Amino acid sequence: MSGPRYLEDFEIGACERFGCYPVSEDEVVEFARRYDPQPFHVDRAAAERSHFGGLIVSGWHTAAMYIRMINDHGATRHALAGLGFDDMRWPRPTRPGDLLSVESTVKATSPLQSRADRGIVTFATRILNQRLEAVMTFDMLVLFPRRPRA
Amino acid sequence: MSGPRYLEDFEIGACERFGCYPVSEDEVVEFARRYDPQPFHVDRAAAERSHFGGLIVSGWHTAAMYIRMINDHGATRHALAGLGFDDMRWPRPTRPGDLLSVESTVKATSPLQSRADRGIVTFATRILNQRLEAVMTFDMLVLFPRRPRA
Repeated sequence: MSGPRYLEDFEIGACERFGCYPVSEDEVVEFARRYDPQPFHVDRAAAERSHFGGLIVSGWHTAAMYIRMINDHGATRHALAGLGFDDMRWPRPTRPGDLLSVESTVKATSPLQSRADRGIVTFATRILNQRLEAVMTFDMLVLFPRRPRA
Repeated sequence: MSGPRYLEDFEIGACERFGCYPVSEDEVVEFARRYDPQPFHVDRAAAERSHFGGLIVSGWHTAAMYIRMINDHGATRHALAGLGFDDMRWPRPTRPGDLLSVESTVKATSPLQSRADRGIVTFATRILNQRLEAVMTFDMLVLFPRRPRA
């Protein structure tokens, strides 16, 4: 992706898939010990006895791996700012051994009323595992410049 | 907080404040190097030259510190499941040296149509810094059991 990207460059329905993040058990346990030390995130034996049947990844760790993939891809490099996230859900667990990727679809583009030179792009985003099942979904709202008039 | 908590135990408007998470620069840089390596998260000199005027915390690291505070507090210990998050925003930066806490207000309780024994509690949540300014806000949706009939 080279050169600036403007609001007008995003077409509704345009979809890209990017990223490749292998989920390692060591990293899952390390993250969860620090931030989300629930038995089914940090203790393999307890996780196997739980209704999850094995270790699952903290939802916030999945989010962190997503933001790493976004950084590596440069998807929002020409954005002015990330505004926030709506409808964040985790439809199924992420597990050690999964290979994650990102699927991002342009859902809406809307010029700002308050600033004629900016607008918001809404990306419907799905984090997928290696079976292309969604493990996390949300809408991401990002501020982009509008194309300057010639 | 002892004993089970049921949907009926949550009163609209009830508010609690909990948690105390000191934000250290070392931790901020370590997290961001791994998951969100933008200059204003990982490079103090670059951050000082940026419009932020100094290092700021990855929004996803603020989220991770929040989930640690939730775990330590046990606020959702009797929940059946976390369902997701809506309207996630970061109204101002978190910075190294900040001391974070959580303010959680019961916004809505709604019995599930599909399962008479369960319901959803929506917590309007604000992560606050030491000046009690919100650095992150969202609605958290949590599934709780309903009180069994006598």
